[in-house]
Amino acid sequence: MLLLTAKPVAEKIRVEVKRRVHLFSQQFGRRPKLSVILVGDDNASQIYTQRKGELALQLGMDHETITFPKSVTPAEVRNRVQKLNQDPGVDGILIQRPLPKKFLEGDVLFWISPEKDVDAFHPQHAGELHLGLPTFEPCTPAGIMELLSHYQISIQGKVACVIGRSPIVGQPMAALLLKADATVIQCHSKTQDLKALARQADILIVAAGKAGLVDATYIKPGATVIDVGIHRTSDGKLTGDVLFEEVAQVASAISPVPGGVGPMTLSILMRNTIHAAEIRERARQHLA
Amino acid sequence: MLLLTAKPVAEKIRVEVKRRVHLFSQQFGRRPKLSVILVGDDNASQIYTQRKGELALQLGMDHETITFPKSVTPAEVRNRVQKLNQDPGVDGILIQRPLPKKFLEGDVLFWISPEKDVDAFHPQHAGELHLGLPTFEPCTPAGIMELLSHYQISIQGKVACVIGRSPIVGQPMAALLLKADATVIQCHSKTQDLKALARQADILIVAAGKAGLVDATYIKPGATVIDVGIHRTSDGKLTGDVLFEEVAQVASAISPVPGGVGPMTLSILMRNTIHAAEIRERARQHLA
Repeated sequence: MLLLTAKPVAEKIRVEVKRRVHLFSQQFGRRPKLSVILVGDDNASQIYTQRKGELALQLGMDHETITFPKSVTPAEVRNRVQKLNQDPGVDGILIQRPLPKKFLEGDVLFWISPEKDVDAFHPQHAGELHLGLPTFEPCTPAGIMELLSHYQISIQGKVACVIGRSPIVGQPMAALLLKADATVIQCHSKTQDLKALARQADILIVAAGKAGLVDATYIKPGATVIDVGIHRTSDGKLTGDVLFEEVAQVASAISPVPGGVGPMTLSILMRNTIHAAEIRERARQHLA
Repeated sequence: MLLLTAKPVAEKIRVEVKRRVHLFSQQFGRRPKLSVILVGDDNASQIYTQRKGELALQLGMDHETITFPKSVTPAEVRNRVQKLNQDPGVDGILIQRPLPKKFLEGDVLFWISPEKDVDAFHPQHAGELHLGLPTFEPCTPAGIMELLSHYQISIQGKVACVIGRSPIVGQPMAALLLKADATVIQCHSKTQDLKALARQADILIVAAGKAGLVDATYIKPGATVIDVGIHRTSDGKLTGDVLFEEVAQVASAISPVPGGVGPMTLSILMRNTIHAAEIRERARQHLA
């Protein structure tokens, strides 16, 4: 059984990003910059935001976290984003989720200008992805593709089953697998006989957000299993959507939680940020 | 066996569009207008374009077809589209496909401003569709959804298999079925054991572009089969991707070719056009 640990892959990407950041800084006389917007005082969001900032600095980028109290109006945040959109020194912008309920996701998705949208949540990016056009790819699914590629899991012609259909993971995951020529089965909370469908998968991606949903009876012998879930048990341990111990007996490869998908997401975010910076500066030179 | 003929559904939509066009013209003192761009002298394209124009006129809309010789440069067509984008009297624009090879589809998709893109080919529309946001829906898959709805084919929790992954039919079809809570299996030319996957489908959508690809052995008894293919046989008859006679013995419902999907596509195009006109005029009033 092959353990699909993120560490070597994430590290490889970070080395590459660091090199590109260095080149960029030399070439353009400034460092690429990531601006993160954080609304409210959710503890997990604070930790995630802090990690993004630390990694950006570690890779040689500039970074700022702009915080707003929970009481802020959507219009105020939107104005701030618009300023960041226009700021030539800002290359990547992201708005940490979850946002308070008064923020309408269907509006917020459009706020960050596509060229700075390093989370790739803007509908234009989603469309480009599904149309097979060059685009920024959402961090988690793009990270999973890197994980599969690094461990030489072949995708073309294979049956891939994605459990979950969120705009951030499930749907773009299906699009990326399809682009890589997998046959894709997309399942979700309304799916009947989930087990029978999952059991057909050579590659099973579990992004259901339900701790321990997938046991060994869901797995085709020899399948590759990617666990996107992350949950904290009552005794404080981190666990995924997949029952690791028993699934590992049947699968030929499985990603652990923690240490599987999570670190990949963060690495791709950094890669999207340097990519955004490079594209903007090259376009600027081209116009000059 | 239920024959899923477009006629009653397409007619219902056309009556509704005609009513809305009439109201629009009364309210805003002008008729909604569809502008169609046709490049070259492909015979089929000329016929399709002509049909769109005739139907628009029949439903009370204004219509123009702007033709260019095959020798036109992409820049010239693009300039013309930009003028149409800015023309307040034009509500819907479409560029008839196929275009000569010097036109890069990845560029052309962005030319028509989303608010006038009645074919819904712009990446922003594709993204909104996949993200579950309100949007214009591509005509063929939206027409198929109307067909299924009219004939009361239930979708939620059912297994739907889509054969084909084109940006115009296969991919948005999968998105619409997913939005309607189907479990979706997306197959394509690289799929292995297509038959075994298709046979699991309660709803089978065949958009492979291969005459007679699907025979009775691909069909789950009692399934609903939608045939998107259209081909002309050597003796001049129209036929689909599905072997109608034998599949009709196994399926519980099947769409004919011709008279199935085709007329639906055209009706949805007209509905998208009046919809675009209404949205723009209401937005203008709101701003005034």
